[in-house]
Amino acid sequence: MIALDAMGGDFAPHATILGAIQAARNGIPIALFGDERKLIPLLRAIDPLWENLSLTLFHCPDVIGMTDEPGKAIVYKKESSLVRAVESVANGDTRAIVSAGNSGAALVAGTIILGRAPGILRPALGDFVPTCSGSIFCIDLGANVDCKPEFLEQFAYMGAAYVQLVTPLAEPRIGLLSNGEEPYKGSQVVKQTYDLLYQSSLNFIGNVQSRDMFDNVADVLVCDGFSGNILLKAMQGTAHLMTVWLKQEAYRSWWQRLYFMLGYSIFKRLKNRADYAKKGGALLLGINYPLVIAHGCSQAEAIEQAIRFAHYTAQEQFVSLFNEQFLAILHKNKIPAAQSTERLRSLFGRRHAYH
Amino acid sequence: MIALDAMGGDFAPHATILGAIQAARNGIPIALFGDERKLIPLLRAIDPLWENLSLTLFHCPDVIGMTDEPGKAIVYKKESSLVRAVESVANGDTRAIVSAGNSGAALVAGTIILGRAPGILRPALGDFVPTCSGSIFCIDLGANVDCKPEFLEQFAYMGAAYVQLVTPLAEPRIGLLSNGEEPYKGSQVVKQTYDLLYQSSLNFIGNVQSRDMFDNVADVLVCDGFSGNILLKAMQGTAHLMTVWLKQEAYRSWWQRLYFMLGYSIFKRLKNRADYAKKGGALLLGINYPLVIAHGCSQAEAIEQAIRFAHYTAQEQFVSLFNEQFLAILHKNKIPAAQSTERLRSLFGRRHAYH
Repeated sequence: MIALDAMGGDFAPHATILGAIQAARNGIPIALFGDERKLIPLLRAIDPLWENLSLTLFHCPDVIGMTDEPGKAIVYKKESSLVRAVESVANGDTRAIVSAGNSGAALVAGTIILGRAPGILRPALGDFVPTCSGSIFCIDLGANVDCKPEFLEQFAYMGAAYVQLVTPLAEPRIGLLSNGEEPYKGSQVVKQTYDLLYQSSLNFIGNVQSRDMFDNVADVLVCDGFSGNILLKAMQGTAHLMTVWLKQEAYRSWWQRLYFMLGYSIFKRLKNRADYAKKGGALLLGINYPLVIAHGCSQAEAIEQAIRFAHYTAQEQFVSLFNEQFLAILHKNKIPAAQSTERLRSLFGRRHAYH
Repeated sequence: MIALDAMGGDFAPHATILGAIQAARNGIPIALFGDERKLIPLLRAIDPLWENLSLTLFHCPDVIGMTDEPGKAIVYKKESSLVRAVESVANGDTRAIVSAGNSGAALVAGTIILGRAPGILRPALGDFVPTCSGSIFCIDLGANVDCKPEFLEQFAYMGAAYVQLVTPLAEPRIGLLSNGEEPYKGSQVVKQTYDLLYQSSLNFIGNVQSRDMFDNVADVLVCDGFSGNILLKAMQGTAHLMTVWLKQEAYRSWWQRLYFMLGYSIFKRLKNRADYAKKGGALLLGINYPLVIAHGCSQAEAIEQAIRFAHYTAQEQFVSLFNEQFLAILHKNKIPAAQSTERLRSLFGRRHAYH
């Protein structure tokens, strides 16, 4: 059973309920955590026969909003949908959680309630980001805004472990996000991380600029959560900007409008390719249970995808596999043989790649 | 006379010489700093009558390469084209410098040789970045990787002063780049800066995410040089990625190829709109003389634009105007009346806006 924070997200609870119903119809049992006074009417409206689906409702009177400060919210809102959902995994009632709500609160709840995995200094959010010829695994994308060099070094190990497990790459190329390629470029923290990674046995290729990361120069991009978040959202913003510019072009003349109408399917495909909101969420790496953090702007389709992702993660015991692989790299400080299987690759590999 | 570091840039000295010749033909006198054994044959090849143009050659035996560490390079390469060019401004032989070379070295040379303007803690690079409906002035874009909150606070003053001078906006909206809109979001430095800006008399609108900066939410975006550089280059990279994706679409079938050929002029226009390399450089704000830092990848056209920008900066005494405006804001901690003139607006305002 997958726990869903039904109250979390910009379009919750409508989008979460819709996504949950779709996932349940596809055979994934779901535990819905939220305010039943809101959820039951919605469930009835969407599917009058919802009680026949494998949906279980857990009433939670509290909700953690997007403006709640994460640390305080976890302490003072014990009866919130998020905290209850996370606790259900720790208690063994469910096998994984999905939340599209306050991501800071989800991170804190995941780390405190589910606990850090052995050897982990800081759990981190990692995900594949599309590039010109495939994708690059970026870590951290927003879990840790202030990082020490040792944290960033561990993100490199975590990224290597993830990519080893879900792709055929035995020695992923590790790049460090910086403002220039030269070793002397970067903030103090980045420069110290450079030295740590240079001395490690990872396949470290040096600094990577955000302009070059799309050119297949590395398989893993290590960054602190602040820069990673700026990077990811700048990509989203630029894709949005270019879509708007295309639309502005379309309104310059009647023949341009006609031109863009003719190419509708092409632009639709490009938009989908660039559109993160349609994709599921990212796994919080370095904790003891699967916690999938979905985008705040997730619509039903993204919620369903995130549920599916959480389901596979639990089913394949991916979190244990990952934590073992991480420990192996950490202790030997050398990349062990890839444990990648076709199955893991197809379920977790390069989810953002172009189909 | 404008000093040009003729040896600086990925395509130097060919691109710099070509840009200088074009600018000289348009009536801007140029002092070329570089290795005359390389420059003279090039000048002859491009324009056999180059000696009739207002080009003056200053032989410099040294070159600061892209991999040279800035601080050391300035100290040990006194006879480099960059150091000599910057010194020529300090000596009053020229009125402004343009360099597309090692930007770190240009920053250090500019700060040390030309000196910080009164009240300035750290000079910074600022420039307009295109948005859906205009542009936003981002500062710092790469001059200061490690920043204290007081530096970021000053960048806000500098951004406000710049925008006041070159746009009709009397009270520019100041945003702070962060990983979330809420005041509690951001690194320690960002959170402390938030408090400083909140207490200031600036028109501070709070945190801005890199995704939202394109939606006309602010006129100035304050960031440290590391994040600003990641942001700017992520925009360039994403625009490049989308161009590649468009090309991939064009190669999917013969009719799609035909389709894109028909729309060639549209895509060309969009590419130009997104293409930073064609734009001139950015002014290093907070020093006593005009120093324009052009993109490393500048071709002749960009060099010419940067020279023109440096020329106008010197002609309008923009650096003095800016430094006065900054001091006024700093001392009163309140935005004085805009000193914007039509002339300044047309020369410096929103250079990245769509034409």
